[in-house]
Amino acid sequence: MKVFILGGDGFCGWPTSLHLSALGHEVVIIDNLSRRNIDNELEAGSLTPIQYLGTRLQAWKETTGQEIRFERLDVAQHYHRLLTLIEEERPDAIVHFAEQRAAPYSMKSSAHKRYTVDNNLNATHNVLAAIVESGVDVHLAHLGTMGVYGYGTAGMKIPEGYLPIEVTTDDGEKVRQEILYPPNPGSIYHMTKTQDQLFFAYYAKNDQLRITDLHQGIVWGTHTKETDLDERLVNRFDYDGDYGTVLNRFLMQAAVGYPLTVHGTGGQTRAFIHIRDTVRCIELALETPPERGERVRILNQMTETHRVRDLAELVAAQTGAEVAYVDNPRNEDAENDLHVKNDLFLDLGLEPTTLEGGLLDEVTSVARKYAHRADLSKIPSTSTWTERQKPGVPGEPA
Amino acid sequence: MKVFILGGDGFCGWPTSLHLSALGHEVVIIDNLSRRNIDNELEAGSLTPIQYLGTRLQAWKETTGQEIRFERLDVAQHYHRLLTLIEEERPDAIVHFAEQRAAPYSMKSSAHKRYTVDNNLNATHNVLAAIVESGVDVHLAHLGTMGVYGYGTAGMKIPEGYLPIEVTTDDGEKVRQEILYPPNPGSIYHMTKTQDQLFFAYYAKNDQLRITDLHQGIVWGTHTKETDLDERLVNRFDYDGDYGTVLNRFLMQAAVGYPLTVHGTGGQTRAFIHIRDTVRCIELALETPPERGERVRILNQMTETHRVRDLAELVAAQTGAEVAYVDNPRNEDAENDLHVKNDLFLDLGLEPTTLEGGLLDEVTSVARKYAHRADLSKIPSTSTWTERQKPGVPGEPA
Repeated sequence: MKVFILGGDGFCGWPTSLHLSALGHEVVIIDNLSRRNIDNELEAGSLTPIQYLGTRLQAWKETTGQEIRFERLDVAQHYHRLLTLIEEERPDAIVHFAEQRAAPYSMKSSAHKRYTVDNNLNATHNVLAAIVESGVDVHLAHLGTMGVYGYGTAGMKIPEGYLPIEVTTDDGEKVRQEILYPPNPGSIYHMTKTQDQLFFAYYAKNDQLRITDLHQGIVWGTHTKETDLDERLVNRFDYDGDYGTVLNRFLMQAAVGYPLTVHGTGGQTRAFIHIRDTVRCIELALETPPERGERVRILNQMTETHRVRDLAELVAAQTGAEVAYVDNPRNEDAENDLHVKNDLFLDLGLEPTTLEGGLLDEVTSVARKYAHRADLSKIPSTSTWTERQKPGVPGEPA
Repeated sequence: MKVFILGGDGFCGWPTSLHLSALGHEVVIIDNLSRRNIDNELEAGSLTPIQYLGTRLQAWKETTGQEIRFERLDVAQHYHRLLTLIEEERPDAIVHFAEQRAAPYSMKSSAHKRYTVDNNLNATHNVLAAIVESGVDVHLAHLGTMGVYGYGTAGMKIPEGYLPIEVTTDDGEKVRQEILYPPNPGSIYHMTKTQDQLFFAYYAKNDQLRITDLHQGIVWGTHTKETDLDERLVNRFDYDGDYGTVLNRFLMQAAVGYPLTVHGTGGQTRAFIHIRDTVRCIELALETPPERGERVRILNQMTETHRVRDLAELVAAQTGAEVAYVDNPRNEDAENDLHVKNDLFLDLGLEPTTLEGGLLDEVTSVARKYAHRADLSKIPSTSTWTERQKPGVPGEPA
């Protein structure tokens, strides 16, 4: 099939583009290179030596003979170019990664909050409006987040998107309904993903668009089968306080002999998935699109959950690093449980890469190998969730 | 108190500005005049001869001695000017009407969908981000819509914003929760208001902003006590297919001797409120703000519900007009029930103006009085909800 990958130059988008191309699909990457440009803003780059996109595409062609095309455009801003591309190319599917995806970055300042809202909501809505206007029957697969569920459960496994509830009518009768899981986002970034869900529900209902929303856990790992084919195909590895997710931070800290910094009590439970499983899930999602007129297909794209402190202990046990507890910059409960259903992908044939089995390989093949490239001053998170958490605000603990 | 009225030149904003000024509050109107500019686009203006804003403000000063200030700016675009105004003026409250508010307009084309999303979501988010950045303890009162509830109830009165539900845990235990009422918007416009709710919930939780969200029914009526003081203060009356709401269309049609055009079976039930009650509700909402740290205060701002066909019969009975049934341009159920709680405003002292009592006055004092100004070709709605509903699309009824 022909697939557009919006955000196909990013951490998840790039290995997905290679994976789908390797499977024989015709892949067109659409990207505004914003993630590389944010590196310039934050003065923090990928630990791995990622190549310019032109070099990457050339390397892919030399290695496999497959061609991946690239269109540089901003889907949040260049609506008419996007529309024309859909009308002319008539893709079978669009995979939508084209959103600002770091919670700490979305909380850095008012400007970063506003950029995240403006970019993410207009990007998603432009794609939907363009599909309708084009009249092309495209399957849209969107990368959402487990964070829409709000990291809190009332003694039940988080279902895949929809929650069965009972309401009591005015006559005292109990009525069963199934609703979109009530959202409780923990950052501006996560909030935009809960708002995306409302876009999808509306366009699936009003225009019968075929939409899959993948609620993804925190992605770890760097290499996939395809990025391993040539060093010029190497994927990003972010270790900085904004884009580096908790596990990559630990791996980096372990590699350079720093203590692993755990926020608060480390009692936060999070869902995880390896990047190899991400690309496989997208393959599976594209193979099983919803029908026209079906509600949005929501799948939980994660394979295991861990408390942050347990994760730190796991990395410490495998590497000999120490664990250090520091103040939590986020505005969240200190401890939470998280039990998540992921039957849909397991039923489709996903075979998860486990943290236990894959962690040490990440430390040696990525974190230690490229440790000489790291700027250690970038590891701590400097974003805070509220004004009163900023260092130096009087009357409150820093 | 000092109050900013965002969108203070519009149909609800203008009489609200006058009402709050008459009560002795210091009022600053912030508006980009977008509603007047849309008149130019649609080539359809207010039936009543509204004056330029400068003339309106001058008339108010001459009539009452009160001064209302005006700042022309676009809150969706001019964030830093908005921020500076909040920092310098330190308002006690901001009333937020600054959104595109017509469902048919939001469905006219891809460009209109995108404008509505971009304008409404960025406007709301900019206000919230600016309040946080300013550090000023502002009470934000936002005009939402009954349409967030989706015009569908399962045998129960729609509560004021929050729904008590029961979920069954994995141990078979029933757990009670109260959630934001599950949204089911009927247009792009209504969808943006359901997304606004998620902005509010997040900022109330993360930043302890004090927010009131008023879920308003369809507003009817034109004059308030204050707009009656001088003819130059007259309020808008929209009768066109995009901005004219169902009741105003009927009044206009009755005034000029046209049949009242009912969409589909006319079985759609809608909630209504008179503009005099709107301004009183906002007065009451500003007098009873939530505390810091409280969840968003949601009130249903409506006073009665009617089926559209009953409304047509009511107008017909009072005016002698005929009723005509035409195809429904909207994508919605033909018939729906609607029972709504509005105890909160009644408890605060609201005394509703009833349709039965006030309708004929509207026909004589507005529709008949200004009928000579009407362009009757603008009355039919030309927006359709889906491509297949457009006239001339083969294979489907027009």
